[in-house]
Amino acid sequence: MRTVRLLRVTKVDNALEIIWRSFRPLAAEEVGLDIAGGRYLAEEIVAPEDVPAFDRSTVDGYAVRAAETFGAQESLPALLEKVGKVRMGEEAIPIKTGQCCYVPTGGMLPDGADAVVMIEQTTEVDGLAHIYKQVAPGENIIKRGEDIRRQQTVLRKGQKLRGPEIGLLGALGITGVKVVRRPVVGLLSTGDEVAPVDTPVLAPGWIRDANGVALAYLVTQTGARVVRGGIIPDRYKDLYVGVQSLLEKVDMVVLSGGSSVGERDFIPRVLKELSGGDLLIEGIAIQPGKPTILAKCGEKPILGLPGHPVSALTIFALFGCALIKRLSGAGDREWQPTVRAQLTKNIPSRPGRVDLVRTALQGREGKVLATPVFGRSGLLHTLAEADGVICIEAERDGLSAGEEVEVYLWV
Amino acid sequence: MRTVRLLRVTKVDNALEIIWRSFRPLAAEEVGLDIAGGRYLAEEIVAPEDVPAFDRSTVDGYAVRAAETFGAQESLPALLEKVGKVRMGEEAIPIKTGQCCYVPTGGMLPDGADAVVMIEQTTEVDGLAHIYKQVAPGENIIKRGEDIRRQQTVLRKGQKLRGPEIGLLGALGITGVKVVRRPVVGLLSTGDEVAPVDTPVLAPGWIRDANGVALAYLVTQTGARVVRGGIIPDRYKDLYVGVQSLLEKVDMVVLSGGSSVGERDFIPRVLKELSGGDLLIEGIAIQPGKPTILAKCGEKPILGLPGHPVSALTIFALFGCALIKRLSGAGDREWQPTVRAQLTKNIPSRPGRVDLVRTALQGREGKVLATPVFGRSGLLHTLAEADGVICIEAERDGLSAGEEVEVYLWV
Repeated sequence: MRTVRLLRVTKVDNALEIIWRSFRPLAAEEVGLDIAGGRYLAEEIVAPEDVPAFDRSTVDGYAVRAAETFGAQESLPALLEKVGKVRMGEEAIPIKTGQCCYVPTGGMLPDGADAVVMIEQTTEVDGLAHIYKQVAPGENIIKRGEDIRRQQTVLRKGQKLRGPEIGLLGALGITGVKVVRRPVVGLLSTGDEVAPVDTPVLAPGWIRDANGVALAYLVTQTGARVVRGGIIPDRYKDLYVGVQSLLEKVDMVVLSGGSSVGERDFIPRVLKELSGGDLLIEGIAIQPGKPTILAKCGEKPILGLPGHPVSALTIFALFGCALIKRLSGAGDREWQPTVRAQLTKNIPSRPGRVDLVRTALQGREGKVLATPVFGRSGLLHTLAEADGVICIEAERDGLSAGEEVEVYLWV
Repeated sequence: MRTVRLLRVTKVDNALEIIWRSFRPLAAEEVGLDIAGGRYLAEEIVAPEDVPAFDRSTVDGYAVRAAETFGAQESLPALLEKVGKVRMGEEAIPIKTGQCCYVPTGGMLPDGADAVVMIEQTTEVDGLAHIYKQVAPGENIIKRGEDIRRQQTVLRKGQKLRGPEIGLLGALGITGVKVVRRPVVGLLSTGDEVAPVDTPVLAPGWIRDANGVALAYLVTQTGARVVRGGIIPDRYKDLYVGVQSLLEKVDMVVLSGGSSVGERDFIPRVLKELSGGDLLIEGIAIQPGKPTILAKCGEKPILGLPGHPVSALTIFALFGCALIKRLSGAGDREWQPTVRAQLTKNIPSRPGRVDLVRTALQGREGKVLATPVFGRSGLLHTLAEADGVICIEAERDGLSAGEEVEVYLWV
């Protein structure tokens, strides 16, 4: 038989480890709080002040000295002189022994008070508050600095700025933060038969660049920006020049197509030369998507995806996203949420490689059912029929109907 | 005791049902494929052509008549005259009896051929291909229209355009689609004590508008656009005019603050008057976040969030996102992925209401551990310490340490 160079195949976990080890987060930049959401901090945040900056009531009620309510009950209320109302955003007048002061939720606690009685547990008659329930010192108030204390480290380097973190920064008056720069990802489609998606009528033997548009969306979903490098014919020189010039403008290049062991396969050669030597990955023990390659050129990753659309999108969702997250400054372990479901059919799987199985979900009688969508990796419609994928670990030789599985959703 | 108007409290499931029933997806608009990702289709997509438009090889190899390989084996190869090479993007020359033709992965199958033998199972000597393995008709090819057949309905109205769907549209040459318009969400913060986040030094009794910046991020994460309406003092007329004028510019208004039953609480009154009558929701059986209100003004929702930051963000993530998804055209049941984890502590819960419990995740020895983050809903740092929330159903009176729980992640 013909001698064909065999791919050096990397295990999935090793591939993710190689990604983590070989690349570093991009440089930091200062951005406004309004666009910092979803980004990763490149600095530690130390609180410049206390939050809240004053003792606050957490209810509508009467600010009191707690000791003066001790023993109060429905049949024997404590009686306190009401000396005024705290207005929101205004300093409260102090209270003395035997006095109380109305304070709304969020209002400032008057000097002299150490607790608040909820309005529902009081009545007011002729300037006298009847308190029907005792309160403990500190009850119904948030103390100055109880949420965030001045000089406290509130956010760590590398932390993702989600809603709560954006809120914290806003509460502290921090309107600009240093975050890792958003990666710019260059996309190149390769193949002599690939036409732009806006080609109205295809010549015989041609297909449209479906991978290009789908990958562009997936890249933006991961928080990166896209530069479309267009379509490059399968010629060594065109590829070399195309990848090289795109690489100058971006932080990472993703090639779609042309990574199988074929006669006209120049991509591994181009990537080897551009990276000045070895490829980091020249194949992954995964199905679909084995002919995936990864090179490092300077500090920049070049990811060569398999050409079949199912393989290209699935592999990108796994390894492309991992690369973008690494460059974006994400931690080494982000939680991956899944939908739990019960498998409706057996799925065979060959041990020794990870199988990514397209899966449709269906709710029935309070249960979630997962049905594999079988079909070759050239068939894009099988992905569109799937809600997500099941990942069968390399050690398993398949899954059985009735088993509980975890489904990673498509976005 | 003082008579306080009691809130009419809606159950969580009913609240989601009310959202679904009371509002409709926004109007459709035509957008380019490059910005259609994540949007919901407002039309059915019928394939204008076959994909692929020709029989294609899925491997590098020789296009043959399958029958002429029957019986071929290592010791007795079938011998076929190689009459040429198919080039990518070019029409193949037909083959006749006794002939074969080299075809690369993705190349067009020549007329006369009905299968492809993988290159690994052949050798070539002096223009003669030695075929060592028989193939069945159809083997290693994708037939014309096998992925998508012309006139077939490929995508349904209401379907989300994820990566695979964008790819399908691209493959079909459909570069513009009708999708539901992205909602524009107006944000208003209320309260006399609330200062913009860029206020360098707070006056006594003031706090910064942390909710405003955090909610703005959460809105954009849900795919909507934000219009910041600023901060409005707690006065009936200011509120009325503020909400009314913002409502003219947006599809939905979200108010943060001022929905508890307090003396200065004008929001329910304003929303009642603007909606011309009843509120859809004037309280939800959930903790934190009970004083949540929802009104409908014309076709537009107005959501009044509780003022405490933990309540505001948690309630927005649940009901605010549900409203945005409804307006965006999402289906009634999108799968909600979670992280499964083992609870490390008991969590008490009062039956009759849903409890949303802030929870931190931790990996240990291959297991994921979930630890509740307790703390009052005025304390934003408790949210920042949490990876997500556990939802304790209304029927449960708590969860026990060791139980398996599902954690909804913060984004």
